[in-house]
Amino acid sequence: MNPHALPLAHRTGFLVGSVIDSSTALLAEQEHDIVRFAMGSPAPEAIPTKILAELGEEAIGADAPDAFDYAATHGDPALRSALLSQLSGTSDATSDDRLVITSGGMQGLDLAYKLFVDPGDLVAVESPTYTNGTATALSYEAALLEVPVDEDGMQLDALVDGVEQAGRRPKVIYTVPTFQNPSGVTMSLARRRRLLDLAREWGSVVLDDDPYGMLGFSDHGLPTLHELAAGDPLVFSVRTFSKTVAPGLRVGWVDADPSLRQLLIHAKQAMDTCTNLPAQRLLAAFLREGYLDEHLRAQRSRYAARKQAMHEALTEHFAGRAHWTDPTGGFFLWLTFLDAIDTQELFEVALAQGVAFIPGNAFSPQGRFPHALRLCFASSTPERIAQGVARLHRAVDLLAAA
Amino acid sequence: MNPHALPLAHRTGFLVGSVIDSSTALLAEQEHDIVRFAMGSPAPEAIPTKILAELGEEAIGADAPDAFDYAATHGDPALRSALLSQLSGTSDATSDDRLVITSGGMQGLDLAYKLFVDPGDLVAVESPTYTNGTATALSYEAALLEVPVDEDGMQLDALVDGVEQAGRRPKVIYTVPTFQNPSGVTMSLARRRRLLDLAREWGSVVLDDDPYGMLGFSDHGLPTLHELAAGDPLVFSVRTFSKTVAPGLRVGWVDADPSLRQLLIHAKQAMDTCTNLPAQRLLAAFLREGYLDEHLRAQRSRYAARKQAMHEALTEHFAGRAHWTDPTGGFFLWLTFLDAIDTQELFEVALAQGVAFIPGNAFSPQGRFPHALRLCFASSTPERIAQGVARLHRAVDLLAAA
Repeated sequence: MNPHALPLAHRTGFLVGSVIDSSTALLAEQEHDIVRFAMGSPAPEAIPTKILAELGEEAIGADAPDAFDYAATHGDPALRSALLSQLSGTSDATSDDRLVITSGGMQGLDLAYKLFVDPGDLVAVESPTYTNGTATALSYEAALLEVPVDEDGMQLDALVDGVEQAGRRPKVIYTVPTFQNPSGVTMSLARRRRLLDLAREWGSVVLDDDPYGMLGFSDHGLPTLHELAAGDPLVFSVRTFSKTVAPGLRVGWVDADPSLRQLLIHAKQAMDTCTNLPAQRLLAAFLREGYLDEHLRAQRSRYAARKQAMHEALTEHFAGRAHWTDPTGGFFLWLTFLDAIDTQELFEVALAQGVAFIPGNAFSPQGRFPHALRLCFASSTPERIAQGVARLHRAVDLLAAA
Repeated sequence: MNPHALPLAHRTGFLVGSVIDSSTALLAEQEHDIVRFAMGSPAPEAIPTKILAELGEEAIGADAPDAFDYAATHGDPALRSALLSQLSGTSDATSDDRLVITSGGMQGLDLAYKLFVDPGDLVAVESPTYTNGTATALSYEAALLEVPVDEDGMQLDALVDGVEQAGRRPKVIYTVPTFQNPSGVTMSLARRRRLLDLAREWGSVVLDDDPYGMLGFSDHGLPTLHELAAGDPLVFSVRTFSKTVAPGLRVGWVDADPSLRQLLIHAKQAMDTCTNLPAQRLLAAFLREGYLDEHLRAQRSRYAARKQAMHEALTEHFAGRAHWTDPTGGFFLWLTFLDAIDTQELFEVALAQGVAFIPGNAFSPQGRFPHALRLCFASSTPERIAQGVARLHRAVDLLAAA
């Protein structure tokens, strides 16, 4: 390729992608039985395939002739109204003028960074943080400020220190406040309030990415940043049906100040014109028929049992050798070895033993977590979880012996 | 909103969007009968809704439990292999290592600009050109060079002059070479060859956006830029099923040099993770069952008859008052009034008379076409086309009299 036309690798998050890429490429090659703690997918049995297929016969069947045409860029009216009703009375209650339907939560992040970040702008992210969120921020050439998390979420004293050291205010503060990806921790109410105060002081946009908030094992009672902000235009909320209903539908939404609506529509037109209409119609029917609440109830107890199974297996196999978070919802927990075990090296050994995870450095642009890893407890049954953790134990022993 | 957090309007193509926005907003408000020459949608009767619904029962029914999970970022294997077979022997024949499935053709453009354009980079576009393509280029802060088209497509002498005046080579040359949007013209073989020569000389990426090439009224026999380039990495081809099968599915593909594959996957992960899987499965079944060829045959004769109907109606009503292009395929023709009729003013008068179009300036960042307009002949029956053009005639007379 002519040098003039070389692609801009700095736009494609390649540094972050490389850990995940090499892992998933290796994973795809495996032909033996693998316990998959790697990807953040709902359990196959947690996807309401049968209901969606039944609803599909009406919603996108021969009697719905417009289901395959272009949709409105801000979303199909059927889904918009079903979603507004669904959210009414919850911590994510909103109004029509704040709502833009997106192609999954990922597009919500793409829209936020497109709207707010110029090359070199400072973006504060949790450390560890969501890999693809980092990739999107880097694709707009953000300068990332990694802020450690603890059991109460992002450490705001560290955020203040980091901003002071950087000598400039963050344009965006990106957080997954509830059952964080990858750590599973939840930001406390006090920190939520202080985060909003800091954002107001600095004029920073709070990018409130909350895919797991509806998947608490019990009622956590915490208001979302959206609710706490009470309409403050600095809060930009991203939501998705990927974790609660089905990732393959690629439908989510953005809840943002009405002043941003037209810009969001323009930006989305320049990304994919509109979101897949059959999927919007399917979800509209799913919500309208009242399936979501019951479905969520079932998934919450399913995932609670799985987290418990993983916690017990980890206690059995790794007590004294690692510590791990104890999430009260969501999909993930985060394990840190006390010894200097390189989890990228461990990955290959573990695969050979029949278990997959994501190495910690996939979640840190600066590579701060060489000895940690993310485990998804959501996708495997308790029996498989016990098996997978035992395999992980063998892999750690093998690597230590090597 | 705090000034620090003001959105970057320069990222959202708002200048171009405004003409379309005001038009479509007005259009949405209308409650009376309107002949819709505005949007570039396939005719409702040209969308194979019944076949898709039938295929859906198997492809995304209860027997396909993984149809709602995440898809591979570069596309579902079922669609990838069906598409490779479908393209085999055509001017778009390609290989697995060049193919990335996208969320419509629009995402193909978003990927290309993300990969190749830094703020201030020169991008040559046809004038008039596709509105959302302009929006995407502007969202990466491209500097646009408008190059006039004539009946043989982009005027390459004008391109050379423009590049000389700009004093720098274009990073990207964006073209819709076949049945261009909005003009309906097709780039001649000689110009296709010369365009590739110029791109090689300058080291420019040719962004070959060809949504309509399969919709020629007869066999035009022109090789695509993809075929002519014979694997030259400078050619980046964007294709879509939106015009040939159904826009609501939001599925297209990019055909690019294998060296770009991993960057494309990273970039797409940062946009929407993957493309809607049920839609990919539906299209895979549609192709595998051999429906596409027969479907295209039917649409070609349908659209030929509609173009002919529009040409005849225009001759009846506007001979001597306007000239218009005579496309041999696709969806659009381009009409230019000989008098200085402002087509943005005309739009409102026409709506009141019951006919909609897109004003010419929506297709030119510099606003070069105040007296032209785009007519989509694809979405209306010949009878409705005759009615719509008669209404347009009345609107022009009313505006002239006012």
